[in-house]
Amino acid sequence: YLQLKKHIIAPYDRRYRLWQTFLVVLVAYSAWASPFELAFKKVATGSLMPVDLIVDAFFAIDIVLTFFVAYLDKSTYLLVDDHKKIATRYVSNLWFFMDVASTLPFQFLYQIVTGRMHKGEVFGFLNLLRFWRLRRVSELFTRLEKDTRFSYFWTRYIKLICYEFLLPFPTSDSEKHYTYLNSIKMVTLLIVHTAGCFYFWLAAHYKVPDNTWIGSQVSDFKSRSIWLGYTYSMYWAIVTLTTVGYGDLHAENTGEKVFEIFYMLCNIGLTAYLIGNMTNLIVHSTMRTFIMRDSINKVLQFASKNRLPEGMREQMLAHTQLKFKTAELQQEQVLEDLPKAIRSSIAQHLFRSTVEKAYIFKNVSEDLIIQLVSEMKAEYYPPKVDIILQNEIPTEFYILVSGAVDVLTYKNGTEQFLSKLGAADMAGEIGVIFNIPQPFTVRTKRLSQVIRISHHHFKQLVQPSSEDGMTIISNLVQYL
Amino acid sequence: YLQLKKHIIAPYDRRYRLWQTFLVVLVAYSAWASPFELAFKKVATGSLMPVDLIVDAFFAIDIVLTFFVAYLDKSTYLLVDDHKKIATRYVSNLWFFMDVASTLPFQFLYQIVTGRMHKGEVFGFLNLLRFWRLRRVSELFTRLEKDTRFSYFWTRYIKLICYEFLLPFPTSDSEKHYTYLNSIKMVTLLIVHTAGCFYFWLAAHYKVPDNTWIGSQVSDFKSRSIWLGYTYSMYWAIVTLTTVGYGDLHAENTGEKVFEIFYMLCNIGLTAYLIGNMTNLIVHSTMRTFIMRDSINKVLQFASKNRLPEGMREQMLAHTQLKFKTAELQQEQVLEDLPKAIRSSIAQHLFRSTVEKAYIFKNVSEDLIIQLVSEMKAEYYPPKVDIILQNEIPTEFYILVSGAVDVLTYKNGTEQFLSKLGAADMAGEIGVIFNIPQPFTVRTKRLSQVIRISHHHFKQLVQPSSEDGMTIISNLVQYL
Amino acid sequence: YLQLKKHIIAPYDRRYRLWQTFLVVLVAYSAWASPFELAFKKVATGSLMPVDLIVDAFFAIDIVLTFFVAYLDKSTYLLVDDHKKIATRYVSNLWFFMDVASTLPFQFLYQIVTGRMHKGEVFGFLNLLRFWRLRRVSELFTRLEKDTRFSYFWTRYIKLICYEFLLPFPTSDSEKHYTYLNSIKMVTLLIVHTAGCFYFWLAAHYKVPDNTWIGSQVSDFKSRSIWLGYTYSMYWAIVTLTTVGYGDLHAENTGEKVFEIFYMLCNIGLTAYLIGNMTNLIVHSTMRTFIMRDSINKVLQFASKNRLPEGMREQMLAHTQLKFKTAELQQEQVLEDLPKAIRSSIAQHLFRSTVEKAYIFKNVSEDLIIQLVSEMKAEYYPPKVDIILQNEIPTEFYILVSGAVDVLTYKNGTEQFLSKLGAADMAGEIGVIFNIPQPFTVRTKRLSQVIRISHHHFKQLVQPSSEDGMTIISNLVQYL
Amino acid sequence: YLQLKKHIIAPYDRRYRLWQTFLVVLVAYSAWASPFELAFKKVATGSLMPVDLIVDAFFAIDIVLTFFVAYLDKSTYLLVDDHKKIATRYVSNLWFFMDVASTLPFQFLYQIVTGRMHKGEVFGFLNLLRFWRLRRVSELFTRLEKDTRFSYFWTRYIKLICYEFLLPFPTSDSEKHYTYLNSIKMVTLLIVHTAGCFYFWLAAHYKVPDNTWIGSQVSDFKSRSIWLGYTYSMYWAIVTLTTVGYGDLHAENTGEKVFEIFYMLCNIGLTAYLIGNMTNLIVHSTMRTFIMRDSINKVLQFASKNRLPEGMREQMLAHTQLKFKTAELQQEQVLEDLPKAIRSSIAQHLFRSTVEKAYIFKNVSEDLIIQLVSEMKAEYYPPKVDIILQNEIPTEFYILVSGAVDVLTYKNGTEQFLSKLGAADMAGEIGVIFNIPQPFTVRTKRLSQVIRISHHHFKQLVQPSSEDGMTIISNLVQYL
Repeated sequence: YLQLKKHIIAPYDRRYRLWQTFLVVLVAYSAWASPFELAFKKVATGSLMPVDLIVDAFFAIDIVLTFFVAYLDKSTYLLVDDHKKIATRYVSNLWFFMDVASTLPFQFLYQIVTGRMHKGEVFGFLNLLRFWRLRRVSELFTRLEKDTRFSYFWTRYIKLICYEFLLPFPTSDSEKHYTYLNSIKMVTLLIVHTAGCFYFWLAAHYKVPDNTWIGSQVSDFKSRSIWLGYTYSMYWAIVTLTTVGYGDLHAENTGEKVFEIFYMLCNIGLTAYLIGNMTNLIVHSTMRTFIMRDSINKVLQFASKNRLPEGMREQMLAHTQLKFKTAELQQEQVLEDLPKAIRSSIAQHLFRSTVEKAYIFKNVSEDLIIQLVSEMKAEYYPPKVDIILQNEIPTEFYILVSGAVDVLTYKNGTEQFLSKLGAADMAGEIGVIFNIPQPFTVRTKRLSQVIRISHHHFKQLVQPSSEDGMTIISNLVQYL
Repeated sequence: YLQLKKHIIAPYDRRYRLWQTFLVVLVAYSAWASPFELAFKKVATGSLMPVDLIVDAFFAIDIVLTFFVAYLDKSTYLLVDDHKKIATRYVSNLWFFMDVASTLPFQFLYQIVTGRMHKGEVFGFLNLLRFWRLRRVSELFTRLEKDTRFSYFWTRYIKLICYEFLLPFPTSDSEKHYTYLNSIKMVTLLIVHTAGCFYFWLAAHYKVPDNTWIGSQVSDFKSRSIWLGYTYSMYWAIVTLTTVGYGDLHAENTGEKVFEIFYMLCNIGLTAYLIGNMTNLIVHSTMRTFIMRDSINKVLQFASKNRLPEGMREQMLAHTQLKFKTAELQQEQVLEDLPKAIRSSIAQHLFRSTVEKAYIFKNVSEDLIIQLVSEMKAEYYPPKVDIILQNEIPTEFYILVSGAVDVLTYKNGTEQFLSKLGAADMAGEIGVIFNIPQPFTVRTKRLSQVIRISHHHFKQLVQPSSEDGMTIISNLVQYL
Repeated sequence: YLQLKKHIIAPYDRRYRLWQTFLVVLVAYSAWASPFELAFKKVATGSLMPVDLIVDAFFAIDIVLTFFVAYLDKSTYLLVDDHKKIATRYVSNLWFFMDVASTLPFQFLYQIVTGRMHKGEVFGFLNLLRFWRLRRVSELFTRLEKDTRFSYFWTRYIKLICYEFLLPFPTSDSEKHYTYLNSIKMVTLLIVHTAGCFYFWLAAHYKVPDNTWIGSQVSDFKSRSIWLGYTYSMYWAIVTLTTVGYGDLHAENTGEKVFEIFYMLCNIGLTAYLIGNMTNLIVHSTMRTFIMRDSINKVLQFASKNRLPEGMREQMLAHTQLKFKTAELQQEQVLEDLPKAIRSSIAQHLFRSTVEKAYIFKNVSEDLIIQLVSEMKAEYYPPKVDIILQNEIPTEFYILVSGAVDVLTYKNGTEQFLSKLGAADMAGEIGVIFNIPQPFTVRTKRLSQVIRISHHHFKQLVQPSSEDGMTIISNLVQYL
Repeated sequence: YLQLKKHIIAPYDRRYRLWQTFLVVLVAYSAWASPFELAFKKVATGSLMPVDLIVDAFFAIDIVLTFFVAYLDKSTYLLVDDHKKIATRYVSNLWFFMDVASTLPFQFLYQIVTGRMHKGEVFGFLNLLRFWRLRRVSELFTRLEKDTRFSYFWTRYIKLICYEFLLPFPTSDSEKHYTYLNSIKMVTLLIVHTAGCFYFWLAAHYKVPDNTWIGSQVSDFKSRSIWLGYTYSMYWAIVTLTTVGYGDLHAENTGEKVFEIFYMLCNIGLTAYLIGNMTNLIVHSTMRTFIMRDSINKVLQFASKNRLPEGMREQMLAHTQLKFKTAELQQEQVLEDLPKAIRSSIAQHLFRSTVEKAYIFKNVSEDLIIQLVSEMKAEYYPPKVDIILQNEIPTEFYILVSGAVDVLTYKNGTEQFLSKLGAADMAGEIGVIFNIPQPFTVRTKRLSQVIRISHHHFKQLVQPSSEDGMTIISNLVQYL
């Protein structure tokens, strides 16, 4: 990380990120409080006022703070830590104006300046400016989406809190999608809350209270508790959002009808968006299960179609299942996508010690081993599966990394046990070096990991250095 | 399978699995009965009490049994059959506490201890602890999802029972997804049932019965039959879940409104989840049909674009359709994903006898045949399709496994029939061995299966052993 | 096609298929009439009775006919035309019993036997046996789904009729999916119709008419017109299916509530199924558009990222767009999936005449041309795009099939026009044969189709026959 | 572009396209006004009449204009600019008749001819002919869908206007889908508007006003303002479309019930279509994010499974993230899909100057450089990642395009810094040319772009020209 000027904070600073995450909590409060205070005006000037002022203070601090935070230049990808440039960029931006406008406690200032409360609606609407703060949430989610590791912890945390709002997924894969679904859920709840509050405001300001959606049910609704009003509002908003539409509460006058039209239009989009995302997540999270089941079904079909004996079928099944358990295909793909140098150092790290222990490579030059190891890959074999088949053409030989295998030979019609091999032992090297059909069958005893070296590749590497070739031959002769 | 200590049961034991499956049925009863008894208290202390006690007894037995079941250690993948370890693991777990708490018949014990019935609600809520038992269901489904073979039978069984709740799918492929969809359906029904019962409980305990959702319709609902109450509850719950929302039954007081808000929020997720899963299954189960139709359409487009003659178009179509019928692509993929040794033994099993019967390989060494067979693949050809075209470059030759082909030659502008070949006969071998353009056209008479041997591969195998080469040439000369 | 015994019809017979398609129309009538007659009993014994009898007669004829239709044996894939076997198979099957039971006009027979009308409900329910006939529809659709060509015409026909029930799709690709969506739509309508009729039946047979869903609105509904009753039933059924649920008509008594519960449960599945299928079709039919747009966007991004000059960008764009227009990738895939012999004959058909006209191949042996042509593929080039670049390594040469190209050379810093080539002219052959950097740039004037012959492939084919090699060289020398 | 006859406009003419886009705005007005005027007849003959006449005039102009617009012949792909042919084609088409019929202001003509207003409904229905104009919209969208560049600007414009009707997507990828979703939204709004107006018309013409859906709520609805009637209509239409179905407004008589049945049936399809499209867009637009997250997760899994050290894991992660940032895979795919000549000229443009600057290629013939450059690809490496590993087999060497790398050697157990390389410097060339294991490790200091030249490819190109080979060797010797 770079050295910044004094009194300048890097945007990636951990403490600054924590501060921003803390602000997001305050944003959530603001988003909830603004429409609520519009609808229930007495709260705005009463119990919630001090809370609002404190929250506003925190955002004011953040505005000041922003003048001390370096920013990333989009074209040069460098952090700019010049005070002047930071200030110019922020102030010349619309954001600064909006940040200030959404932070000023207009009502409080008016009260202080004029010495009395304003009766009009203007301050309620000015408070809606605080919705501007929601941009922070979308910024947070954009950051989280890119940061895989962080999102993991965040997700677990959200999961614990919001569990009751969410359907438990049956597949464990989907844990990482909670964040995403939750953000949709939160947006939905915010829209419901805002719509409910505004609908109540419409009723509270209609000239004939009895001719409003709530007044036709509860005629004295203005003098009843805030709790009752809020419950009715939320009940209506959710009955409409979910399209249940009981009809006990519904638009009574033209203004309400027009508002409902827009609310319902918005809801179609929201519902379609929710279903689309849910489908997307389900499709994505069940993909692996489907691929696995398909593979196994194909193996079973193949076996039954060709009437393969039970033993062969079991070997095929065991192998297919193991492949999905060890995610072999995935691992190979990871390696293939990396540049050669990284691939080499991974292979050195994983296989060098095993290869050095193999009897055939004793006293061989370090160069050869490095070159031999650099493109190696490990394979898993399930128990009781053949690695080498007697009389097969020798195209590769194997070094055992872990597990155990049996060496068998088929003589006079019966299989005879010859020996047992363990870690760092080799199999099939005789066939490869002397270029004769494999003399033995090699079968795993339990889950084994082997390194495969192809005939072709081996030859290519040994040929240039005749000395190493001699060492290998002498090792082999000694062994036999 | 491993030998376990005395009095210890393996978790994979068939009898133990049957016992667990039986418990799942009891779990279903518990899940249904707990909210039902909460809502309709007289049942809980009346007719259902003995049933509850018997079910509790079974679960008590299971708790005891768990102390005798070995478990799989997650790190070593070994079964632990030590009595002490099993007990420690189970007792130190939250599960044990929950299992016991959900099994104790509190109401019955209270009755026995105090000698009289408790009037309060506490026991109804304590009974809800039995929902804990549902974990067994999710365990069962996790197991089923992984076990392809078992799930098949289970699915058929569920299908027969639950058919009426399910839409019959048009594609036969989807049979294996019934389990999954059913589990969602069951969860939905359970939520509906629980919500309905709890809604009734809310009404039954509200101070003004006439001001409740059911009381405003049926004022004496408390003294009416359980059947009526349950029907009303379920009717309301489903009218709301499906978002029909007639409005004849709806929340009348604030408490009911709050409950409905949460119920409806839960329903959005549920509906989206149901639609998402249905879409996923449909997308997956129609994929094969779409791929087939696309392939055929592409062939038709290609033919019409290039104005190919009718005969060629028919051959192309026949071949494409056959490929999907025999699932050739799938079979090849299955083989490719297997390790070499298994692939070899499958090929030996399938093709060795056919290759040995071919005249050209008479008296040839066994080694050569094994090596030749080890990478063979079979292909299907539809009737009236050319396998070899006269004058073509000879890149491979064929051995017929089944079916029949005609050998034709094109002379003086007309096609002349030469001979007919059957199983184990060869085609194209003269072109390959003498390296001359194919002298004949070979065309299938009916559905035929052939083995293809490539020129290159054949040469590579025969060259090292000059003896086998001589045998083959002499076989060929004899044949001609 | 095979020769069948006398008086035996092949199941693929065109006339028999037409008859079956005609029966499907009658099935549609039956499916509509059965629940309708149950609900409105006076119709069943009145105006619709003769129609029912005629329809029943047709199905009776079909039962007799089935004894004369050969069937396909599932294991041998052969048509069985033995009278006895056909009869045994049909009669021993449950289908025969159901076919007969669903065809017998019980009411009419009862009337004839007893001489008077029965007042009970039993015949209405017996008529529901006719739903059995719906199996024919699913059989028809299974057949249509597999038969790509037939489905096309059928689709257009359905489209004209059912257009009003269907949303016009914007993409032309989706025409082939109408059949499928329509079948779902039809099933939905049938369920709605059946549910509506049964709901009316419930009301008509309830002891207190005023306490039914329709009686509470129209108290004299039993004596009103069938039209009114049917409209109310369908209105209720659709208001519930679509989950609009106005609530003006809703369940009044327990029986109706229970019926609605099952109807609504069924509807959730139906809706999810409908949405799932619609999504599937949309995903499938927009796939090609998405792939095309993505490709073009990638080209644009690549160009802007690397700041390529305008001309290069235009060439890239033109090429990408042309590729999608000519569906080049699809065509190549079609060819790759076919066996070698078919591929060869297609290539001979398409390119042989062009290759024979190329000056370099004059007087060359027919064998060489056949072998050369057999693996050829055509490529399209948009106007003003370079095919060959001056000084490039010669890896392939080209024969023009259609279109026109300019030969240019870059000398003293300016491009100079040398000559113009047309159909059957060659480009790049000098570079390839003398193995020197391409001496000219070749650029298309308008949309051109070329055949590409690779250096490597050409050498391989010409080398064995020295005579042809000489002819080619002499042709070339003569040309220069 | 081609030269057309005088007074003939090309269909691609920019001014003509602008005119057509302007007409689409008028079409939108027509589509809105036609059903509105049917429902509220007094508007049709009042305030909207002059607007209608002006709009009609514009469409009349367009009819005349069409006679002067060339058209594209579908078979020859040529523009036809012959006056006669254009006229014949247009007039003989149904379109001409419909265009004229939808443009004639019947009501106005009748008024002028007869001198008085017509009281009947016939003109309202005749106005519905204007819906024919909607074909222009679908034509516009078809064009936009194909034209990627234009759609971009159009999209931004629509986005600004229609933002309030649309849910803001969280992913920036989806910007290009707005057009599409908007078109669906617009169709939905049009259906809602038309249905609402027609429903009002039904009520206004029913014999008993009190027995209509609106009359039962507002008994004097006919004499009330148009605003009230329109609000009620739209409110009903949207309450029904969204399936909220409060039930305050619902069908009262049979006619209205039948209309609602069809409206609701249409809505199911519309909703399913909307959800399907939304799902499709979401699946498509989140695909890239999912692929990226999956890749990163796989890398993390691989690292933790094989217990790789932290440093290696960081290198792997950095490389994977960079690959997605630079869209490397996409760029390679773009190049692969292009024909060789275009690929070559791109490579010349991008890399030639860098290669010429490399010390090893000084004074080398231009031909060699062109050939060397023609298949080059650039790769990005993140900071602190190994490009070459000491002792590795030399399979390729590198030229730096930008960035900086360190050359390191591992001696006596510690890494020693040797030198620093910048743009146009080479790495690994010594190993490749002398065919010895790489003598140094090369590691990036910051984001670097390199060109990779493979050993094999380099040899192949240099071998034929011994002169260039000598120059390269002497350059190398001089450098060392």
